[in-house]
Amino acid sequence: MSEQSNQSTPSGSSVTVLGLGPMGRALAGAFVAAGVRTTVWNRTPGRDRELVAQGAVGAASLEEAVAASDLVVVCVVNYDASDALLRTESATTALKGRTLVNLTADTPDRARESARWAEAHGIRYLDGAIMTPTATIGTPHAVFLFAGPAGLYGEHEPVLAALGGTRTHLGEDHGRAAAYDIALLDIFWTAMAGYTHALAVAKAEGVSGAELAPFAQGIAAILPDIFQDYGTRADQGVYSGDTNPITSAASSMAHIVHTSEAHGIDAGVMRAAEGLARRVIGLGHGTDGFIRITEVLGRTAPAEQH
Amino acid sequence: MSEQSNQSTPSGSSVTVLGLGPMGRALAGAFVAAGVRTTVWNRTPGRDRELVAQGAVGAASLEEAVAASDLVVVCVVNYDASDALLRTESATTALKGRTLVNLTADTPDRARESARWAEAHGIRYLDGAIMTPTATIGTPHAVFLFAGPAGLYGEHEPVLAALGGTRTHLGEDHGRAAAYDIALLDIFWTAMAGYTHALAVAKAEGVSGAELAPFAQGIAAILPDIFQDYGTRADQGVYSGDTNPITSAASSMAHIVHTSEAHGIDAGVMRAAEGLARRVIGLGHGTDGFIRITEVLGRTAPAEQH
Repeated sequence: MSEQSNQSTPSGSSVTVLGLGPMGRALAGAFVAAGVRTTVWNRTPGRDRELVAQGAVGAASLEEAVAASDLVVVCVVNYDASDALLRTESATTALKGRTLVNLTADTPDRARESARWAEAHGIRYLDGAIMTPTATIGTPHAVFLFAGPAGLYGEHEPVLAALGGTRTHLGEDHGRAAAYDIALLDIFWTAMAGYTHALAVAKAEGVSGAELAPFAQGIAAILPDIFQDYGTRADQGVYSGDTNPITSAASSMAHIVHTSEAHGIDAGVMRAAEGLARRVIGLGHGTDGFIRITEVLGRTAPAEQH
Repeated sequence: MSEQSNQSTPSGSSVTVLGLGPMGRALAGAFVAAGVRTTVWNRTPGRDRELVAQGAVGAASLEEAVAASDLVVVCVVNYDASDALLRTESATTALKGRTLVNLTADTPDRARESARWAEAHGIRYLDGAIMTPTATIGTPHAVFLFAGPAGLYGEHEPVLAALGGTRTHLGEDHGRAAAYDIALLDIFWTAMAGYTHALAVAKAEGVSGAELAPFAQGIAAILPDIFQDYGTRADQGVYSGDTNPITSAASSMAHIVHTSEAHGIDAGVMRAAEGLARRVIGLGHGTDGFIRITEVLGRTAPAEQH
């Protein structure tokens, strides 16, 4: 379900891009560069100047922009913003019968609710998530996730290919792209919180960022194998057999909290993480690996409740 | 200051290893395999059986073990445990004039305090940290950090080379190996907390570990470049100029918290991380990058106080 190359874009294809923040401009720019007839619109005027100079068509209104293409891509700050644009009577009427691809980042439940709204108004709907920075758009480094009807995705994939990179259709459930997005951003921002904190503790200990970075890169390099192993073990419910019991992790975490706070540096993130490890130990799983946290966190999930 | 190969071990060299938990046994096994005359001891008897079968000498007492070698390596669960072994009158007397290398993990202040104790008792002292699992010991994948007098490290490096992998002497400050250790474990365990949480949220959304893992590996793959960039920017005090302002990160983090808690999954780690981002925004740095967290956390560090 994953496509990697930029196929040549079908001749006569067209797209409308609503929302011209940095990401919207990057998306529109990639469509223009691929030779797709691209109509653009932004609530605040003037953001389309550079794109129009490159060959995009600047629309005077959202309704005019939507009318120009069968495929409409929207990318704004969140679903509150996209709802404000799209859920007016005139916009909804203009979108009827067309395909709306919402690349705005938000939660899975918002994506599913938007799919219900679209269906109720005769709008064909795909949800998507952009996993890489604006600079990657149109390059082989871009990563896009899509969710919604497979046939609808297949119909528009030749034009979406202009966005470059890897595009994966994750399934019919419209919330699925946002679900992956949330889980992946969870990993990313938690890891970044760890690194920014580690830089502060290192500095207080007289270790510079330049000194720490190569070793930090060594830590990043061991994560992929562990991610694979833990993913499999989470699916299979195999929490034991780790050479590193969670009691040992909790002990390391306590050292980190102690060292951080001895320098007056807030250790709230690590305190919360240590709390999860202590909770696992308190539940009698101290000899299990750190992966047991996944199971203990999931115990409270509605799917597991009776 | 970093050595990578296993040089041939000097003939006639000897070492004593105190503490035969999984890591102590791996260290002693690597010395034995390299042809170093290795004496071993553990508080609980019987742990030396396999090592003795491989050619190690099992000592009847800690004092006898220490007397057998000029170089004594200790690796136990923490400094409370190593202090309990080493800070007796008989052990301290036996260690006098010898080199003690403490590979036990603990905090930088404990390492520095141990160096003061060693100096007061005429014991030559190096502190070290082991950054890789037991299975790597004696292989090219092991990573060791050392701190303490450079001359003393240089004297024993030919024998320590039997441990394999990469060995780096970080400086004269005895706390330096533990400082790196703490900062690197901070990154590792925070990232692992993020991944175990992401697996729980993904499962609640119907996404399996096997489905998430390849994309999670993609996230791990983008970290090294960011770690390098953020390390440099932390040193230079350059917090702005990020294409991704911290307000955008905080918005993503709020989506993660919302989705997690909607499934009844504790989001304490992400809540704490989001709190750091909100604190940065509240201090007027909302257009800066996420790296600003390092500076704000460091503001309270004693080195910055007046």
